[in-house]
Amino acid sequence: MSAKLEFWFEYGSPYSYLAAMRAQELADEAGVALAWKPFLLGVIFKEDLGYLDSPFNRFPKKADYMWRDMQRLCEMRDLPAFKIPKPFPQNGLLASRITCALQGDERLPVFVRSVYRAEFQYGEDISKPEVMFEILSQNGFDAPSLMEAAQLKKNKQKLMELTATAQSKGMFGAPSFVTPDGELFWGDDRLPVALEWMTSHK
Amino acid sequence: MSAKLEFWFEYGSPYSYLAAMRAQELADEAGVALAWKPFLLGVIFKEDLGYLDSPFNRFPKKADYMWRDMQRLCEMRDLPAFKIPKPFPQNGLLASRITCALQGDERLPVFVRSVYRAEFQYGEDISKPEVMFEILSQNGFDAPSLMEAAQLKKNKQKLMELTATAQSKGMFGAPSFVTPDGELFWGDDRLPVALEWMTSHK
Repeated sequence: MSAKLEFWFEYGSPYSYLAAMRAQELADEAGVALAWKPFLLGVIFKEDLGYLDSPFNRFPKKADYMWRDMQRLCEMRDLPAFKIPKPFPQNGLLASRITCALQGDERLPVFVRSVYRAEFQYGEDISKPEVMFEILSQNGFDAPSLMEAAQLKKNKQKLMELTATAQSKGMFGAPSFVTPDGELFWGDDRLPVALEWMTSHK
Repeated sequence: MSAKLEFWFEYGSPYSYLAAMRAQELADEAGVALAWKPFLLGVIFKEDLGYLDSPFNRFPKKADYMWRDMQRLCEMRDLPAFKIPKPFPQNGLLASRITCALQGDERLPVFVRSVYRAEFQYGEDISKPEVMFEILSQNGFDAPSLMEAAQLKKNKQKLMELTATAQSKGMFGAPSFVTPDGELFWGDDRLPVALEWMTSHK
């Protein structure tokens, strides 16, 4: 198996959305395989940085900037108009558990992108089971069994393990990327840089 | 006079260094003129965000990441090995005042880049008058008269005005870029995005 670039995403994170929408295409162009890894950034914010809320909500000036930045980047990348989720940040626990239940399914990225679209393009509340059920059904997944699998102890545990791994790798934000040689890159804007690093450090 | 992209930089800021080293080249390629504007980010950090120190110093994990990010980006951009200044952040008050005294001089960017090189490539202390004097002399500026001009009330005031303007434009980090249509972009990684915005929104 060839070495993969780990793509760590948090469902509540706007810049993770941006990265999810272009990650596969950019990785394919670079000839790099991706490993899609959900994690709960809120846990790390709380434990490592003492943040009790999203950095988007901590400083009004920064928040204004980041929403405008999202709008502009969506426009420049031909994505639909960006919607600020209400409430923000959204609770991505259920979506993350479903993603854990989908490990090994090659259509996992289809689910991930659909969740992000629901959240940031249609303004849906991704914490709702019915929203998840609909996304799964519409994309041809076995919705009833995946909704059940999401509540299994092994998938809940898997998510906790992924979050602990993210923390141990030094992550403090999302999206993050980790190369096979252990380099950590933070932010959607670092996705092309991480891919360049992989192709120039083989 | 054609519309310019404002390039706002803080001498203590590592990512401002990265931007300063490539700003002119990228702007020339895009056919965009630059207006180089020094400001004191520490004032804004204190007043608007309640930070009493650089974000680089606030969280060890983030700091480790950012130093490594700087090293990698310098390597990938063929810049000399990155040196962490001691102390960090450096006090750029004097360099900023000299930059104000250089307003209108078309060789201003030469001085700016030389200060950044001294700080992040050679590890020199840019708060020292003798370091500034040497940089000015070596680059063919009239060092004695510029050192004197830096202490004039009008240049001290100019720097305070620039900082107030930066604050009123919503800046909270450096480097920042402001387009003629009032768009604010933050970070070295947003320099190409700001230039793309300018060329596609004429």
